Amino acid sequence: MREIPLGMVGGGQDAFIGNVHRIAARLDGAFRLVAGALSSTPERARASGEELGLDPARIYGDYRQMAMAEARRKDGIRAVAIVTPNHMHAGPAIEFLRRGIHVICDKPLTATLAEAKRLAKVAERSKALFVLTHNYTGYPLVRQARAMVARGDLGRLRLVQVEYLQDWLTEAVETAGSKQAEWRTDPTRAGAGGALGDIGTHAWNLAGFVTGMEPEAIAADLSSFVPGRVLDDNAHVMLRYAGGARGTLLVSQVAPGNENGLRLRLYGDKGGLEWSQENPNRLWFTPFGGEKRLLSRGGARADPAAARVARLPGGHPEGYLEAFATIYSEAARAIRAHEAGKASPPEVIYPTLADGLSGMRFVVACVQSARRNAAWVRP
Amino acid sequence: MREIPLGMVGGGQDAFIGNVHRIAARLDGAFRLVAGALSSTPERARASGEELGLDPARIYGDYRQMAMAEARRKDGIRAVAIVTPNHMHAGPAIEFLRRGIHVICDKPLTATLAEAKRLAKVAERSKALFVLTHNYTGYPLVRQARAMVARGDLGRLRLVQVEYLQDWLTEAVETAGSKQAEWRTDPTRAGAGGALGDIGTHAWNLAGFVTGMEPEAIAADLSSFVPGRVLDDNAHVMLRYAGGARGTLLVSQVAPGNENGLRLRLYGDKGGLEWSQENPNRLWFTPFGGEKRLLSRGGARADPAAARVARLPGGHPEGYLEAFATIYSEAARAIRAHEAGKASPPEVIYPTLADGLSGMRFVVACVQSARRNAAWVRP
Amino acid sequence: MREIPLGMVGGGQDAFIGNVHRIAARLDGAFRLVAGALSSTPERARASGEELGLDPARIYGDYRQMAMAEARRKDGIRAVAIVTPNHMHAGPAIEFLRRGIHVICDKPLTATLAEAKRLAKVAERSKALFVLTHNYTGYPLVRQARAMVARGDLGRLRLVQVEYLQDWLTEAVETAGSKQAEWRTDPTRAGAGGALGDIGTHAWNLAGFVTGMEPEAIAADLSSFVPGRVLDDNAHVMLRYAGGARGTLLVSQVAPGNENGLRLRLYGDKGGLEWSQENPNRLWFTPFGGEKRLLSRGGARADPAAARVARLPGGHPEGYLEAFATIYSEAARAIRAHEAGKASPPEVIYPTLADGLSGMRFVVACVQSARRNAAWVRP
Amino acid sequence: MREIPLGMVGGGQDAFIGNVHRIAARLDGAFRLVAGALSSTPERARASGEELGLDPARIYGDYRQMAMAEARRKDGIRAVAIVTPNHMHAGPAIEFLRRGIHVICDKPLTATLAEAKRLAKVAERSKALFVLTHNYTGYPLVRQARAMVARGDLGRLRLVQVEYLQDWLTEAVETAGSKQAEWRTDPTRAGAGGALGDIGTHAWNLAGFVTGMEPEAIAADLSSFVPGRVLDDNAHVMLRYAGGARGTLLVSQVAPGNENGLRLRLYGDKGGLEWSQENPNRLWFTPFGGEKRLLSRGGARADPAAARVARLPGGHPEGYLEAFATIYSEAARAIRAHEAGKASPPEVIYPTLADGLSGMRFVVACVQSARRNAAWVRP
Repeated sequence: MREIPLGMVGGGQDAFIGNVHRIAARLDGAFRLVAGALSSTPERARASGEELGLDPARIYGDYRQMAMAEARRKDGIRAVAIVTPNHMHAGPAIEFLRRGIHVICDKPLTATLAEAKRLAKVAERSKALFVLTHNYTGYPLVRQARAMVARGDLGRLRLVQVEYLQDWLTEAVETAGSKQAEWRTDPTRAGAGGALGDIGTHAWNLAGFVTGMEPEAIAADLSSFVPGRVLDDNAHVMLRYAGGARGTLLVSQVAPGNENGLRLRLYGDKGGLEWSQENPNRLWFTPFGGEKRLLSRGGARADPAAARVARLPGGHPEGYLEAFATIYSEAARAIRAHEAGKASPPEVIYPTLADGLSGMRFVVACVQSARRNAAWVRP
Repeated sequence: MREIPLGMVGGGQDAFIGNVHRIAARLDGAFRLVAGALSSTPERARASGEELGLDPARIYGDYRQMAMAEARRKDGIRAVAIVTPNHMHAGPAIEFLRRGIHVICDKPLTATLAEAKRLAKVAERSKALFVLTHNYTGYPLVRQARAMVARGDLGRLRLVQVEYLQDWLTEAVETAGSKQAEWRTDPTRAGAGGALGDIGTHAWNLAGFVTGMEPEAIAADLSSFVPGRVLDDNAHVMLRYAGGARGTLLVSQVAPGNENGLRLRLYGDKGGLEWSQENPNRLWFTPFGGEKRLLSRGGARADPAAARVARLPGGHPEGYLEAFATIYSEAARAIRAHEAGKASPPEVIYPTLADGLSGMRFVVACVQSARRNAAWVRP
Repeated sequence: MREIPLGMVGGGQDAFIGNVHRIAARLDGAFRLVAGALSSTPERARASGEELGLDPARIYGDYRQMAMAEARRKDGIRAVAIVTPNHMHAGPAIEFLRRGIHVICDKPLTATLAEAKRLAKVAERSKALFVLTHNYTGYPLVRQARAMVARGDLGRLRLVQVEYLQDWLTEAVETAGSKQAEWRTDPTRAGAGGALGDIGTHAWNLAGFVTGMEPEAIAADLSSFVPGRVLDDNAHVMLRYAGGARGTLLVSQVAPGNENGLRLRLYGDKGGLEWSQENPNRLWFTPFGGEKRLLSRGGARADPAAARVARLPGGHPEGYLEAFATIYSEAARAIRAHEAGKASPPEVIYPTLADGLSGMRFVVACVQSARRNAAWVRP
Repeated sequence: MREIPLGMVGGGQDAFIGNVHRIAARLDGAFRLVAGALSSTPERARASGEELGLDPARIYGDYRQMAMAEARRKDGIRAVAIVTPNHMHAGPAIEFLRRGIHVICDKPLTATLAEAKRLAKVAERSKALFVLTHNYTGYPLVRQARAMVARGDLGRLRLVQVEYLQDWLTEAVETAGSKQAEWRTDPTRAGAGGALGDIGTHAWNLAGFVTGMEPEAIAADLSSFVPGRVLDDNAHVMLRYAGGARGTLLVSQVAPGNENGLRLRLYGDKGGLEWSQENPNRLWFTPFGGEKRLLSRGGARADPAAARVARLPGGHPEGYLEAFATIYSEAARAIRAHEAGKASPPEVIYPTLADGLSGMRFVVACVQSARRNAAWVRP
């Protein structure tokens, strides 16, 4: 079998993101799911595994069992996808990393910064790789935007405006039976950030990925608009970068009319660009003084960095799953190089533990800033 | 003559906004320009007046002269448009108000808050009306948005996101011969705000007009990205409203790819709406849980408040000049009622001195906040 | 008075297009309405004239009266706007042309080709000018598109796709009290074409204006979808041009969701462009092999032909009334040159009798083709 | 192994569509590629198979070999994907159908109608299924549109406007080394239709799928704009339906600025809808007299028929590969039911041989009509 054998922790029946990871893992033929500890409830774990056609011997009721058993098998998994709620990332990740099994983990890194640091230490000492699924960095035109910034198409960056707006938490769905909403609004499972952790970290990561810069200070105004909700469901954040660039990061889960409105705008002294996740195959670019251009994935001015991760000619839309699959495929390339004792090729890019730690610092800084009336805080 | 005779201060050759006011004044047949002190340079004033076909006897070299002479004429002007740079608003406005001549003045109100207060005192005591041309409030769909908020289509407002992005000051055009840029970047003529005064006041006014609310605190981060520029060319402002609503106001004149990107987004607990000046005949509205709708000016769900100020059936675009003309036509209606000793009909709406003062307080508050590292300031 | 004194035939209370012509005539200060035969019903004519503030002596109950009386006055009208239903164009136009009064006439030229030819003969012999208000040719970006085609930006044209889709006749509103619908669906007043005459002629004219070409053959499939409707409310037309270019022209008044969807797409061997009336300040242009560009009125690559007829900087939308006003202002320039015994400057462009005749031939050809089962007919 | 074992004919290195089929086949875990006759050149077949990690014993140099060998294996393929040029569809399809192996075949059905009929006869007698990859019918919002038409949201259909515009054949790339262009412009491999066969059949199929109707007459005007090109690269087609509905079908491969512009507009007496492949997660719907709505895949008013084939919540874009995968997954469901001796569930939908025959008749009718100067022809 050419595919890398993969296990999964979490992602049982009814979990949205588990199926996304499974599709992403197999879309390019990079991985093959062969084992799973798909739920903390044993019967559910078994039912889910059977539904996926896993070998009954490799359906586990517990991730530790799976780690142990798979590490012993000759044909054991070489990588594991961790798709549990935030507070259940660190435990399994550490367990597998210690056994030399590569980890592909959903974001945010963990629920707390302390866990994140603990995980980071283990990861440093492990010979296995750690990949964080900040999936939006897999979009070809996000890669393109990054290449354009890097080669100076925008000149010196002045403004970074990123936002991620949703509306699904406009009402108190967490008390009305939505499992997705329940754990995301529960500090013991989600951590200190609500919208911040769930989607703010994506916005933060996207801006950092494309610009290659991280703010040196942030000032955050957090709100919990829905009565009874403890964690933030809206955040307005101002950003300051070394060298004078400025930015804003807006996050909301209570903005009716927005489904997954992740948008990035960058302005430099030579040009500007704009990208939106909901129509990801288009990128606006305006060189200052020139015409506004609508670049397409695969059309004119397509960058090799974008072409490398595209599967179709321009005009045929790729979407969220393809971008997610790119993270998996990049991970597979890195794993293969790593196992062959080689350095990962320079063009292979995936979000790492450093990105995860950065996201955690972002959430913590926002919470601190908000507590101090939106004072400036270094993330 | 049915039209109200109008004079103009400023707006000579090469001034962009003068011609806009002239078209706006006559578009609906409400006013007729018959006199002018169109430039502080006498030859230019004369040449400009002749070009416009004014009676030579009513071309003045000085606004005081015009005020005096026209006040004495039986057929003298009943209103005057003031379209000079900011620091030249208060002087003429006071002069005409004192003589009972209605004033239609470009925004922002003045260059300094002190001038604004002085003007306000005179206006209070004058029997003449004062109208400020916050022209965006003349768009039918802005009126519609206001009506929708007022009647509760969005429920209780939670989020107010307004922005006005331009790109024409991306480079130092003020040192390269642009008259428009020169005075707008010069604190002695523009006042304490650069982009803030020029377009930030429009964004502030628009948000206030549509929501019927004003923030009780703002926190502003101002930048002057172009070397040598003294005033702000970019502003990121966070807003806090009484009752818990939150907002952001972004202003930039250095955002390549944006011409006149004035955009408003409002989100409440029952729905959201979005409007953009560059395509002003469309309004997005999403009742939470329902379908996203693209309302057109004159189409289904059109509000009487919008229909009242529209001139065309839906699908035939109205633009900036029509919105501007609506301010003039509303002013004419108010003037006629006023001169007839009647109250202005309740549906007649135009920006007033109170709006102008609010705008000045906004600029001052932003500058103060920025000096205190983006501390919260009451505007 | 600098403005050219203008009379109007038709356009009384409740007539939509009369007010459009009046705004268009005064928007740039080119004309001043001073006389009118605004309705064939005398009381209505009077009431309408008074409402507009006309001198009672110049409110006429009949266009012949007006022509006679105004021709005798020293300060008589120099031009007349004819805004009656189609079958009432030729009569007044001939009357005024014979008296040397310039005619600005709504489209289509007449109700029948016979009338059109009769009018043409009179116009040829008249010393007065004849202007047809194919108002869409007044949009700056339509002028730009024409200039781009002329200078070869698209290379050799291959495809011309034009359409004008509306929905207001989806139901039988002509039997439910809509005056606008009544005469437009009545062959004795509208002529042989329904949608064809009302909006098809606009589409035909726009394509001809921008491309500089007219088809040598057309094949038309007409429908009257609403029971009881005699004239077409939908037309599908295929076009063949000399030299091999091909095209389509689609017209509908029964396409729900379309308000005034006039759209033009042109493709040549070097590039393509697309324009839509509902967002007229944008023009898509793609040089083959290059990036797709969104040109704005007044932005980069703006052509002098567009800038000449624009009133505002890019980003501030101009609309339907401005385009209409441009036809009036061009007419005024032509009239002034004409009256001064000079040739009209080459850059001054307005739709003429030739355009009107072409439109009539188009309608007739479509009807003939449709009768012959969509056979090819030379227009 | 739960996946259905799949073979592939064609789709070797450099073939675009082969990889699309492979991704589509595995995206939902429905099939597993285990055998291939990937090229008619043996070395290329081998190299391609190895690159894909196929068992060397199941890499075949010839599709007949593969059919024979696989039919004999206990673990032999149960389905085969045929992704060769058009003239190479019928041969392999017949070969596999005769052996009871299900066929999933790229479109158009064949190069000639004669072949198509021959294939149809074999298929009728075969116990295996035949699936044609008209992949656009797999988009969730295309399914939604179909459901909306069926349940009467548009009322009685009057207008069907479909188009598929591309630009990649604007120049003579077929003589400049493009393999994709070479065979598509070669009548011996492509058949009688150029653009017609390649993308016109998609447009035809899409319109038929959504409306449930097929025209009873068509009139076609075909062009070959590029010198030396034998087959059509542009087609304008008028459509007439029984009952009076009318339509247009436009196809072009020489329209610069269009990548894969497949668009459908439908208008009935109660409403209209519009969909475009390049942004497939949005569907415009306007009930006549109501507001224009932008439906999203998964948002309000989402139909079960759409939800059934969607993998993600609204706002996360799905694209071309997901739609293609839906065809494969529907095929797998049908195959499973078939092999279990059960009828395929009614909600399972995939394009069949009947659709393929319809497409062939469409191409032939267009060519006949064009030869007779765009006379009406029954397809």
